[in-house]
Amino acid sequence: MTTAAIDTAKSVGAATSNTARAWNFCAGPSVLPEEVIRQAQQDLWDVSGTGIGILEHSHRAKTYDKVLAEAVENCRKVANIPAGYQVLFLTGGATSQNFMIPANLLAQNQTADYLTTGYWAEKSAEHAKMYGTIHEAWDGRPIKHVYCPTDGEIRYSATPAYVHMCTNNTIYGTQWRASATDGSIRLPKVPSGVPLIADMSSDIYSRPINVADFGLIYAGAQKNIGVAGTTLVIIRDDLLARNPRELPGMLQYRVHAKDESRHNTPPVFAIYMCGLMFKWILKQGGLAALHKRNMEKAAVIYKAVDESGGFYRGHARPDSRSLMNITFRCPSEQIDELFVKEASKNRMDQLKGHRSTGGMRASTYNAMSLEGCEALASFMREFAKKNG
Amino acid sequence: MTTAAIDTAKSVGAATSNTARAWNFCAGPSVLPEEVIRQAQQDLWDVSGTGIGILEHSHRAKTYDKVLAEAVENCRKVANIPAGYQVLFLTGGATSQNFMIPANLLAQNQTADYLTTGYWAEKSAEHAKMYGTIHEAWDGRPIKHVYCPTDGEIRYSATPAYVHMCTNNTIYGTQWRASATDGSIRLPKVPSGVPLIADMSSDIYSRPINVADFGLIYAGAQKNIGVAGTTLVIIRDDLLARNPRELPGMLQYRVHAKDESRHNTPPVFAIYMCGLMFKWILKQGGLAALHKRNMEKAAVIYKAVDESGGFYRGHARPDSRSLMNITFRCPSEQIDELFVKEASKNRMDQLKGHRSTGGMRASTYNAMSLEGCEALASFMREFAKKNG
Repeated sequence: MTTAAIDTAKSVGAATSNTARAWNFCAGPSVLPEEVIRQAQQDLWDVSGTGIGILEHSHRAKTYDKVLAEAVENCRKVANIPAGYQVLFLTGGATSQNFMIPANLLAQNQTADYLTTGYWAEKSAEHAKMYGTIHEAWDGRPIKHVYCPTDGEIRYSATPAYVHMCTNNTIYGTQWRASATDGSIRLPKVPSGVPLIADMSSDIYSRPINVADFGLIYAGAQKNIGVAGTTLVIIRDDLLARNPRELPGMLQYRVHAKDESRHNTPPVFAIYMCGLMFKWILKQGGLAALHKRNMEKAAVIYKAVDESGGFYRGHARPDSRSLMNITFRCPSEQIDELFVKEASKNRMDQLKGHRSTGGMRASTYNAMSLEGCEALASFMREFAKKNG
Repeated sequence: MTTAAIDTAKSVGAATSNTARAWNFCAGPSVLPEEVIRQAQQDLWDVSGTGIGILEHSHRAKTYDKVLAEAVENCRKVANIPAGYQVLFLTGGATSQNFMIPANLLAQNQTADYLTTGYWAEKSAEHAKMYGTIHEAWDGRPIKHVYCPTDGEIRYSATPAYVHMCTNNTIYGTQWRASATDGSIRLPKVPSGVPLIADMSSDIYSRPINVADFGLIYAGAQKNIGVAGTTLVIIRDDLLARNPRELPGMLQYRVHAKDESRHNTPPVFAIYMCGLMFKWILKQGGLAALHKRNMEKAAVIYKAVDESGGFYRGHARPDSRSLMNITFRCPSEQIDELFVKEASKNRMDQLKGHRSTGGMRASTYNAMSLEGCEALASFMREFAKKNG
């Protein structure tokens, strides 16, 4: 696809704007569906004929009651969340969950197990240390986080208060997957009765999940389900009762659950955007349909890596390749730089990899289209031909 | 002004929308300037010709670098913030400051003084109790929070770690003011060398302030300077060095200062909106000009209260009347209800008072126009005539 053709394709959606949009492969905050942006533009001025925009309504008034109720209801519908789980919209990012989880669920004399599969999983383990003993049941540092472990490689402690995992490793481009071709989630077999806690910041609602497998799921919204400013927490009721230490109300899950995510003024717009995204996901056919499309999208780009005759080298071991963040390198750092620069000229943006891995990273979250992935794959082939 | 005339006046701004906007007197989240909303609508689609909307840019990329740098720079410019103070954009609302302040600044064996002038000031004092001894140097409960105290009424403890005040009491409609006709801030004379900490959530940047008088200023953005989702904190450098206990990084002012409000993914859109509001404030002529207009706006409504021959009764004592939240009652609760209902029919919205005070509350933050206040005063006169 030529640059001109891409520009034409993208400007179709721009009914009230003269600017064509770029293909945005950013790892987060990241691309949103154009129809969601259009709805938000309208609602900024006036939501539901109230004469007041979404940013200007009281968080205690009827308009927001409905926005919040629909966001929670559709969040539950998307993943078929069973009774006995609360859906919370919090603030402070997934980073704040790194301390809220042990603060709420781990007593000082207890041990929590962490599966350290990447940069953010390392951070989660580090930040938990002030609240109890942290046992790294898997440490992926020696293998440079190129894959997620099998059960045989994990060594749990005797009686962990919980097991913490990160389902998708944004920076290294790995994901807990059943196999290289099957995008379904492969969960570690945790000791019986121990709650599994998952940071799903970069793959939440990108494939089917069985919420009943988890004690707590959390995710920053800015990748697959919304924008920066809120963190989704799905928590099982029995965990709300754990009370290992005195905490301010704002740091207690049970307070936010009791007050239904309105203990104080919530991040109204970020929660509203999650609501729009949940509706959009349902409209796409739900998680099974998105999953199928996400597999197709990633396959198109991995194919360009694998068929490049070694020009592109992927970071992840094929059986742990992420469907969300595709990390690869060119034969040299200089060529990496040229790739990013040339791609940007072709309006494919934010492809520079994280400093930990170098190279490139193409993030293909829910809102990235197959068309965008095909454009990138096509560019990759042309670039390899020119620079190989 | 008739309803039809109001509708016509408001729809002028609605170039790409068919819906007329209401006069929104909400206490927060609250009305925004229409030109700010228009800019946000555009930038949702594409900011600065990047082909990527403001919600979709990485918080580490150049576009957001500029958004953040401008927001900080203009925030400093608006209040002429001197060197030696940091400007931080945090999350968790002003409510989270209630515990972050004592957690960061009060040792367990120290005392902090609180001036309890209203509902939120009460909450601030309550939430601080787990971190040290709290001394209420003024307790406004017995006088039903109808005024803010003079220096002679305040009893400080011997050596407070800080003094906490709330400059405007949103719910009771009182404000620390030099006099009934002069909107300038009257600060309590705190003991020498003791930092004064101010919750300015409902009057920040609505009148000139001398930042050098304070150790720390904080404000939820959703009233005068932006939208729900971020909290502005202006903190003096020496307070960053206080370190009374171990805290997670996300709860330490010094970590956010060192990382310049990007310790983790920040609430990008809420900070962007603050940036637009700071630009708008400068364009209005800055705080002196806004203050003049805010005094005129409030005077128009207080006049309708005072000239109603007792039909309307204000809650606040005249010398402490807020320029931001005007609280009043009709002769009976039934008439209060009718007032809110009839006003809403005339597209004057969100006038119901808080349950603590009952009656009505008209919030007249920076973005509420004089025209809106005149429309309300006119409605009040007609309503009193019909129901008096």
